[in-house]
Amino acid sequence: MIRIGVLGATGYTAVELIKILLRHPEVEIAVLTSRQEGNPHVAAVHPQLAGRLDMRLENLEPSQVAARCDCVFSCLPHGASASAVRLLLDAGKRVVDFSADYRLKSADVYAEWYGQKHVDPERLAEAVYGLPELFGELIPAAQLIANPGCYPTSAILALTPFLKAEAIESTGIIVDAKSGVSGAGRTPKLMTHYPECNESVVAYNVGCHRHTPEIDQVLSTAAQRDVQVVFTPHLIPMDRGILATAYAQPRGHVTEESLLATLRAFYAGKPFVRVVDHLPATKDVSDSNFCDVTVRLVRGRVVVISCIDNLVKGASGAAVQNFNLMYGFPETMAF
Amino acid sequence: MIRIGVLGATGYTAVELIKILLRHPEVEIAVLTSRQEGNPHVAAVHPQLAGRLDMRLENLEPSQVAARCDCVFSCLPHGASASAVRLLLDAGKRVVDFSADYRLKSADVYAEWYGQKHVDPERLAEAVYGLPELFGELIPAAQLIANPGCYPTSAILALTPFLKAEAIESTGIIVDAKSGVSGAGRTPKLMTHYPECNESVVAYNVGCHRHTPEIDQVLSTAAQRDVQVVFTPHLIPMDRGILATAYAQPRGHVTEESLLATLRAFYAGKPFVRVVDHLPATKDVSDSNFCDVTVRLVRGRVVVISCIDNLVKGASGAAVQNFNLMYGFPETMAF
Amino acid sequence: MIRIGVLGATGYTAVELIKILLRHPEVEIAVLTSRQEGNPHVAAVHPQLAGRLDMRLENLEPSQVAARCDCVFSCLPHGASASAVRLLLDAGKRVVDFSADYRLKSADVYAEWYGQKHVDPERLAEAVYGLPELFGELIPAAQLIANPGCYPTSAILALTPFLKAEAIESTGIIVDAKSGVSGAGRTPKLMTHYPECNESVVAYNVGCHRHTPEIDQVLSTAAQRDVQVVFTPHLIPMDRGILATAYAQPRGHVTEESLLATLRAFYAGKPFVRVVDHLPATKDVSDSNFCDVTVRLVRGRVVVISCIDNLVKGASGAAVQNFNLMYGFPETMAF
Amino acid sequence: MIRIGVLGATGYTAVELIKILLRHPEVEIAVLTSRQEGNPHVAAVHPQLAGRLDMRLENLEPSQVAARCDCVFSCLPHGASASAVRLLLDAGKRVVDFSADYRLKSADVYAEWYGQKHVDPERLAEAVYGLPELFGELIPAAQLIANPGCYPTSAILALTPFLKAEAIESTGIIVDAKSGVSGAGRTPKLMTHYPECNESVVAYNVGCHRHTPEIDQVLSTAAQRDVQVVFTPHLIPMDRGILATAYAQPRGHVTEESLLATLRAFYAGKPFVRVVDHLPATKDVSDSNFCDVTVRLVRGRVVVISCIDNLVKGASGAAVQNFNLMYGFPETMAF
Repeated sequence: MIRIGVLGATGYTAVELIKILLRHPEVEIAVLTSRQEGNPHVAAVHPQLAGRLDMRLENLEPSQVAARCDCVFSCLPHGASASAVRLLLDAGKRVVDFSADYRLKSADVYAEWYGQKHVDPERLAEAVYGLPELFGELIPAAQLIANPGCYPTSAILALTPFLKAEAIESTGIIVDAKSGVSGAGRTPKLMTHYPECNESVVAYNVGCHRHTPEIDQVLSTAAQRDVQVVFTPHLIPMDRGILATAYAQPRGHVTEESLLATLRAFYAGKPFVRVVDHLPATKDVSDSNFCDVTVRLVRGRVVVISCIDNLVKGASGAAVQNFNLMYGFPETMAF
Repeated sequence: MIRIGVLGATGYTAVELIKILLRHPEVEIAVLTSRQEGNPHVAAVHPQLAGRLDMRLENLEPSQVAARCDCVFSCLPHGASASAVRLLLDAGKRVVDFSADYRLKSADVYAEWYGQKHVDPERLAEAVYGLPELFGELIPAAQLIANPGCYPTSAILALTPFLKAEAIESTGIIVDAKSGVSGAGRTPKLMTHYPECNESVVAYNVGCHRHTPEIDQVLSTAAQRDVQVVFTPHLIPMDRGILATAYAQPRGHVTEESLLATLRAFYAGKPFVRVVDHLPATKDVSDSNFCDVTVRLVRGRVVVISCIDNLVKGASGAAVQNFNLMYGFPETMAF
Repeated sequence: MIRIGVLGATGYTAVELIKILLRHPEVEIAVLTSRQEGNPHVAAVHPQLAGRLDMRLENLEPSQVAARCDCVFSCLPHGASASAVRLLLDAGKRVVDFSADYRLKSADVYAEWYGQKHVDPERLAEAVYGLPELFGELIPAAQLIANPGCYPTSAILALTPFLKAEAIESTGIIVDAKSGVSGAGRTPKLMTHYPECNESVVAYNVGCHRHTPEIDQVLSTAAQRDVQVVFTPHLIPMDRGILATAYAQPRGHVTEESLLATLRAFYAGKPFVRVVDHLPATKDVSDSNFCDVTVRLVRGRVVVISCIDNLVKGASGAAVQNFNLMYGFPETMAF
Repeated sequence: MIRIGVLGATGYTAVELIKILLRHPEVEIAVLTSRQEGNPHVAAVHPQLAGRLDMRLENLEPSQVAARCDCVFSCLPHGASASAVRLLLDAGKRVVDFSADYRLKSADVYAEWYGQKHVDPERLAEAVYGLPELFGELIPAAQLIANPGCYPTSAILALTPFLKAEAIESTGIIVDAKSGVSGAGRTPKLMTHYPECNESVVAYNVGCHRHTPEIDQVLSTAAQRDVQVVFTPHLIPMDRGILATAYAQPRGHVTEESLLATLRAFYAGKPFVRVVDHLPATKDVSDSNFCDVTVRLVRGRVVVISCIDNLVKGASGAAVQNFNLMYGFPETMAF
């Protein structure tokens, strides 16, 4: 049994992670941390876990966590996460980091978009970007996995096959993404107050969302040239789900059939990406680790549509998928 | 033109009030107050008012408000409201108070349920409870209107006709109420954070909701004996609307037809209560000042169902209805 | 491996059942039936099953189903279900029937509430009402399980412990229930058309909902006297979940603590009922087979609050729980 | 008083139209038609109108309608609408047609996209496209107004100012639109069944939505060259509202400031278009006739964001705005 620690266990990704881990036959949840006072029972913070997990959240130092775990999932916010993660790595632990701290390869880009100096820049090179469909070969040996952002997962899975196959141009790519509200986290704010965001759609952080450089970085690697996407996130009145509608110029001659074939070839043997003929809905992938993706050719423009559950394939499901690959378990274990 | 002031203009009842007042031909919105820094433009706080009202929210003392208004609507929270209202009343202004401060006739009951001493107890006797369907005769001469709570409006309009007609027993009354989330106000809290309350129903404040003594008081007056309701509020994933399902024992012989006739007789000539044969939905009254009400006799039990828009008939619409009666305008003006 | 057939596999309870069965290590889904033309692939009807189950829905006679299955779950509507089920039983198959056909012990009561003559009245006596928390001893030997209705499950689990313990009176019980829209099935109707039921709450079928005699029957057995509840269902704008708020008169001296103790004693050792101190939300049990229940004493009235996922504990989860008991598997297998 | 007829009065645009007309001081609602049997009372079809309008829906021939009205609003579906409208026009009545029948100037394009031959092609030239912000000068004299589609209104208002000002290229324009469910009408279908579309986002009719040629036509007129947009509609779990996110290449040198200035100049004096600095939400314009619009320059791409209430500015509000201009009333009367 692998002993698991979860840092920052009060949020939505943490409870989703715990629910998946409770179905995993090879793990034991050993530690849950939180800075909440009084070491609350996990069921007091997440009532859905009542009767399923009898543990308390503890306010622990990384060294204390290290002493009781083999592998740690950090659900801490960026900045705080790297500060804890680097100590766990120094202690020889393996880590899946949900924050953005180790996703970008450049500390300068990190500083530019996140507004703070990186606390552990020398590890950026060794961190593996945990998107198994692209970097599955690097994951088994990794000590540190940078678990991808939810928007990047939806955008990268939609566009990478076409960039790799040189079926689309690397310039002029647009990603218009629609996300449920859980993506904004569990801290109450006016924007996510029910009567504000219910019965409404809004674009936000247009031109400045922090997931932009992450999408650029991975797509640039795929294209082997510089990619800069126009990324527009929208908040949708639903709990969970991301639908990404991506627009690109075809490169050379393509047909809808050839584009679908490109998707199918790329994702052959990938258990969690379903290339579908129909137009997928986020509900089709809700509470699952699937990404459904399809493509259309509209008036000479390539339109790729992908959807995921932002808390599962966009966060905790991907984390366990990475964990399975790190430890040699079947990729689909616990799903 | 009556010059209107609105105290505490940042919340949902205030914006609803402003929208109604903008349609009112006999008023001028003269003052909007808020403690927010920087005197924000009303459209910065309420984007839906952009281009409709060119005013700023000001951080003013009651005396400053009094100097610029004839009538003041207070949307301040309880406690804070009475502290301001009493000064406005001293200055000779007429006031419609949205808070609970002047609704209860007993300062002791107020202290018991609201956990604080009343700051202006001597005015409790003169305040008129602003439910025009019951107390319409007292409203024209009133200086101070205690605008009813949203739940009490739905419960009182459902039950009063039967208590007055002695068609139900005054004991054993149950009010099971379902409310949209706007009733909880605009301040972000975990309970009203979108991913917490969306796709979920929950009972809250069971046995201890502050609207209980208000319902008791008005129903006791109607019944001319002591009424104590069992009141159970529930939070429903929708913006606005309250549906109250009330259960009572019939008194003497009743039929569904006689019960409907009782309702119809009581509300004859009341423009904002619609006695309907069908089972009403909150959507039928959304964005309107109507209360739809019907009654069924189920296995010997009287089941009364009423619905209102909590922000209109349950707050701002009732306030303008009261205002119309205070100033001798047609009751339905601006609706 | 037990070979499973699912009759009427196009609806919401069927897809929920299939998802649970796909996690069950001891079953093989052998047959899915539907009257839809063209033998559609299950993923064409339920896109969320793409890549998870490669089967077609077939338009089969009961005899054909019997030849290929050991155990059949019928998701057919009432009337149609008994017509098929009796043939499967005649063929020696074990059946879990989701319809109401075998729930009521009296063919007359069935005829009165369902408006049609029962086609298989002689089997009403032998059918076991599949609520394991009450009738768990009868389930292992049963050939035919009448899977409970969703509302009855929520009401019966709330009230039975108190009736058995004689802690409440058997008269005057009120059940005010709130259900998500999936409970109304997958056939489009005006009442469940999105813009009709979204942002709205409505009571429906007041005094005439078909789940009423089912609740009466089981509670009467528990109380060992005639129970007739006043049952008021409400439609809530959410996909899934039922919250039942039940009101009863205490019998003898009770306290909130004694009432909670009664619940705890009754459900000791029952893995799917969680007696909680807090007020539970339907979200706490969403996508799970749990029933969360608590109780309050309000002004001398017992208020019991229970919640379930109507598609899981209220339908497909209960069915698999019954199946596990029928075949000697651990009750919690596949959950 | 202008006597108004409403054809096809059972749907969402009709009830919204009636509510606006009830506030209009210069009209009398004279006729409501429907093919529903039994001449139902309008309040039986639209419960929110109970007590507000005491009329029945009648199954009438166009000649009968003509005899009782001065101006007719047709809410009939395409095809059926032109068949009735042409007779009303022949009878000398003025008509605002909500259907697509008279929007396209080419009967061939109509036949191609709507799959049927146009029944009144010779009137396509004289019909005025009822978008007052663009064609306000033609409306006063028009006998026949083709009321714009909801998506086209949002897209055209977003893009026209930039095409007219030659601030964007006319090629490569993308319109990614998000609509509430009421846009799909009131007829129950699986796609708009609550549990299907709630908690989900989906793109639909990608590359083949019938509003495409309407957007092309008006933008081509504005650009004075052929415009072909890539238009992707999405269904959002909310009642009403459309948010359009449009992407275009700048033409020549532009800045975010110059783009905002272009919008402001174009809409100066237009009472229903609000050019805003912030990112607008559909909730800001809900239940109003406003279109809120803003623009951003993201990585060299022009991103225009507009939002409307699809039932008001996207249908019934625009219709009354057109009516006001046709009859010389103030453009904002009744709003």
